[in-house]
Amino acid sequence: MSILAVGSVGLDSVETPAGKVENALGGSAIYFSTAASFFYDSIRLVAVIGEDFPQTHLDFLQTRGIDVEGIERIQGGKTFRWGGSYTEDLNSAITLFTDLNVYGDFQPKLPNTYKTTPYIFLANINPELQLNVLEQITNPQLVVCDTMNLWINNSRDALMQTLRHVDILILNDGEVRLLTGEGNLIRASKEILTYGPKRVIVKKGEHGAMTLTNSTFFAAPAFPLEEVFDPTGAGDSFAGGFMGYLATIGDTSEETIRRAIIYGTVVASFNVQDFSLNRQRTLTRSEIDFRYRQLQEVVAF
Amino acid sequence: MSILAVGSVGLDSVETPAGKVENALGGSAIYFSTAASFFYDSIRLVAVIGEDFPQTHLDFLQTRGIDVEGIERIQGGKTFRWGGSYTEDLNSAITLFTDLNVYGDFQPKLPNTYKTTPYIFLANINPELQLNVLEQITNPQLVVCDTMNLWINNSRDALMQTLRHVDILILNDGEVRLLTGEGNLIRASKEILTYGPKRVIVKKGEHGAMTLTNSTFFAAPAFPLEEVFDPTGAGDSFAGGFMGYLATIGDTSEETIRRAIIYGTVVASFNVQDFSLNRQRTLTRSEIDFRYRQLQEVVAF
Repeated sequence: MSILAVGSVGLDSVETPAGKVENALGGSAIYFSTAASFFYDSIRLVAVIGEDFPQTHLDFLQTRGIDVEGIERIQGGKTFRWGGSYTEDLNSAITLFTDLNVYGDFQPKLPNTYKTTPYIFLANINPELQLNVLEQITNPQLVVCDTMNLWINNSRDALMQTLRHVDILILNDGEVRLLTGEGNLIRASKEILTYGPKRVIVKKGEHGAMTLTNSTFFAAPAFPLEEVFDPTGAGDSFAGGFMGYLATIGDTSEETIRRAIIYGTVVASFNVQDFSLNRQRTLTRSEIDFRYRQLQEVVAF
Repeated sequence: MSILAVGSVGLDSVETPAGKVENALGGSAIYFSTAASFFYDSIRLVAVIGEDFPQTHLDFLQTRGIDVEGIERIQGGKTFRWGGSYTEDLNSAITLFTDLNVYGDFQPKLPNTYKTTPYIFLANINPELQLNVLEQITNPQLVVCDTMNLWINNSRDALMQTLRHVDILILNDGEVRLLTGEGNLIRASKEILTYGPKRVIVKKGEHGAMTLTNSTFFAAPAFPLEEVFDPTGAGDSFAGGFMGYLATIGDTSEETIRRAIIYGTVVASFNVQDFSLNRQRTLTRSEIDFRYRQLQEVVAF
């Protein structure tokens, strides 16, 4: 199944206790599609960049088999830039600056060839744009969606409207609680199932992930890491590994979903071991499969 | 293997969003030994009570096959009392009062028949008393220990001395971080292995538990609960189920330890579904085994 991802492409400046980078390749669509490309080779990106966006980054995406026809370059425009820092605990970024630039006027326009893509990933962008993308798609088979506190707090109506069309919602534990106003994660996730999604996946950082539907529950471990260099992009790498694997298998049975979540966990675990996309640039499928088997051992009893 | 547990026996007054109880049976030694008694029938308690402690509670322990010879009753003394309340998130108790009473002068004295017990559980009490108990034991085979922020902050030297004699330390995630000053849980747990324990078990509440040695790592899921009535005693019930199962099997192989952690998780999950020990009073081994199998399903991929 081909995958279409809509999200941000940007240049990130990030500082963590382990070091820092400036103007490094980043953005949700980038992490997602690179992670997915370890599993699947028909991935289409919809995003916007400025005239200043280095061609080498687009070349990199193409070496991964990612279709960049849907990335619109605005002549005279500047690429989205984000600056953030992480403190000792690495759980939450402090945003130092957000220069929306061309991203501020982003109106996703899907090339005609994209409009029948069966698997859709709506990365964390304004829910009105997410809905706008869905309106351009003919009969999607699977819609996976991410969001964040900004939209939950400020664009709740649009978000709730988008969620009606979403099959799988991927959030972190704080977002699940914020969206529902419910402290118990199981009850909160079940509440979300009444908003439209048939499945919720809750990312819990060092505590792993969980997913539930109205009749199933799965707890996935985190990969045990003694050192996290840069958490940026972990959630999108998780979603990319997850959806890339799903696209390869072509079904959404409970069994396939569980394996996909483990693959997502593995790719995310590699991603945080270096800055920006650096670890994913050298990562191999056999390294991924090795960690997958290690996680099987981690939960065995 | 017989088990000896030293800890508190008290009367708890607890308020949670689900309701409240007053002067209910509580204390670490009570939760631990009751939980262990689902698996094993040679459990010896060392604790202290006042003249006011209801005989019915001692009768209850004896119906569970728990040896109460080591519970010292102080004539004219009053039993330890604790009052606490939990807010919406149920993660941390607010202590409303602590009346140490006879517990303030507690000096554990082991009956002679207890001194060769092979499996020792040092519940969360002053580390000087934990050490005092160990000094009365001849050649223990397995020493499992709990502690809390109070002793980590105020009795660090005694705690570190006790830890040199401990095989397995069971803590929650906050205590692991506090004890080591290290944010990363994996690195923090490995640091603890340099203090004496050969194994650390980290309880993470709704996120399950994990355990590591210098060469193994296991992640255990939490049992998914939509409602927690009273978290009091969850940690001691976990330890009791864990150690009761270990005592039945009589070895501490990685395989046995993992199963024991799941049994501990299951008993703790039942315990929080009612106030005080109420759920454990009606709980059956077949209910425990059913949840054990459900947890196998929860992590399968």
